[in-house]
Amino acid sequence: MSASASAARLGLNLTVAAAPLANYVPAVRVGGLLFVSGQLPLRGGVLDPACKGKVGVDLFNEAGQAAARLAAINVLAQARAALGSLDKIKRVVRLGGFVNAAPGFHALPAIMNGASDLMVEVFGDIGHHARTTVGVSELPLDAAVEIEAMFEVE
Amino acid sequence: MSASASAARLGLNLTVAAAPLANYVPAVRVGGLLFVSGQLPLRGGVLDPACKGKVGVDLFNEAGQAAARLAAINVLAQARAALGSLDKIKRVVRLGGFVNAAPGFHALPAIMNGASDLMVEVFGDIGHHARTTVGVSELPLDAAVEIEAMFEVE
Amino acid sequence: MSASASAARLGLNLTVAAAPLANYVPAVRVGGLLFVSGQLPLRGGVLDPACKGKVGVDLFNEAGQAAARLAAINVLAQARAALGSLDKIKRVVRLGGFVNAAPGFHALPAIMNGASDLMVEVFGDIGHHARTTVGVSELPLDAAVEIEAMFEVE
Repeated sequence: MSASASAARLGLNLTVAAAPLANYVPAVRVGGLLFVSGQLPLRGGVLDPACKGKVGVDLFNEAGQAAARLAAINVLAQARAALGSLDKIKRVVRLGGFVNAAPGFHALPAIMNGASDLMVEVFGDIGHHARTTVGVSELPLDAAVEIEAMFEVE
Repeated sequence: MSASASAARLGLNLTVAAAPLANYVPAVRVGGLLFVSGQLPLRGGVLDPACKGKVGVDLFNEAGQAAARLAAINVLAQARAALGSLDKIKRVVRLGGFVNAAPGFHALPAIMNGASDLMVEVFGDIGHHARTTVGVSELPLDAAVEIEAMFEVE
Repeated sequence: MSASASAARLGLNLTVAAAPLANYVPAVRVGGLLFVSGQLPLRGGVLDPACKGKVGVDLFNEAGQAAARLAAINVLAQARAALGSLDKIKRVVRLGGFVNAAPGFHALPAIMNGASDLMVEVFGDIGHHARTTVGVSELPLDAAVEIEAMFEVE
């Protein structure tokens, strides 16, 4: 099944690519690579209130994973807007995951799986990616998670 | 106007490319990409005292933006040193911005605009870039901001 | 001396490439670039207890450097597993270093040199790399250091 068909089957709405919060662009293509700016768990252009605050204090494992998934959906919306179709993606190369972690919260990989699982659901084998996950002290809008991506593209 | 002419018109001094703080190099080129190491708001090789500490406690919006701009000027100085001229840059592909944020300070995108605005002032349309901004707990030398970059080059 | 010979002479055991902690892969190659996922100071697949906690409180300079070196050894083990041999590496392009820093600990570049020095010991001139080092609030498994890498490869 193509990535766009998988995305449709999963019921993902990828038609709203969020405007940047500031003076940058959502994605830049250079040669066969597409770099997507760090995306937040926005819904309809505003931070989903359920995805706000520190993971481990304000929200917990399941909600944190949902925040990572939503941020990753926004990554895909940006890629689709830049490329015209998810089907132009040949490989998910790398995700960078930044978790707004409460002091002492170390289960960052489980949170980030909300994003990684989505990539595999949508892209299958070519969705498996390299990844770096760290816990940061603050994120824009007090979001729980921020995710950036690099794709290999046609 | 060329990027080097714009930089001159803005009065940017790009002749001092800071020595690395440790065992790495300021920039590496691979194929058509140039990767610039994380740069701090140094002036004459030392941290500008006005750019030290946590944004939201030790310095605030305008000073934080100035710190980001100064770190970005150092990014350009490194790129110029590596390439011989800013005019070899075909596109600013990506900036990574790390803000030494005080607890509860979320206005990170506004701070990072100090760097992004500079890129657009110097490069015009090809200065628009993808970007990831996060708040971190500590930076080298207690700098307020650190900025890394990727450029597409001739 | 070849990189693999240098690694052998240094007594590095690169035969154990750690399984990912979650739903991602250790490394992805795209064209002439290899991206290695963030690696922790694991030994035999588990976090080395001497490499756990906050640098500046739970461990100090020398132990922090050793943690960075061990994480970098795991980066090399992943690169070797992906490529078949370290000798396929043409250049260490970039390291990203994330230090689990205690509040007020700024000597991050010295810690990260544990990783950078290893690259130069193993690869010589082509081991010199661009680098970004930041202090983060939390890391997976409460590791002291996490390191990601990009290599130019044959």
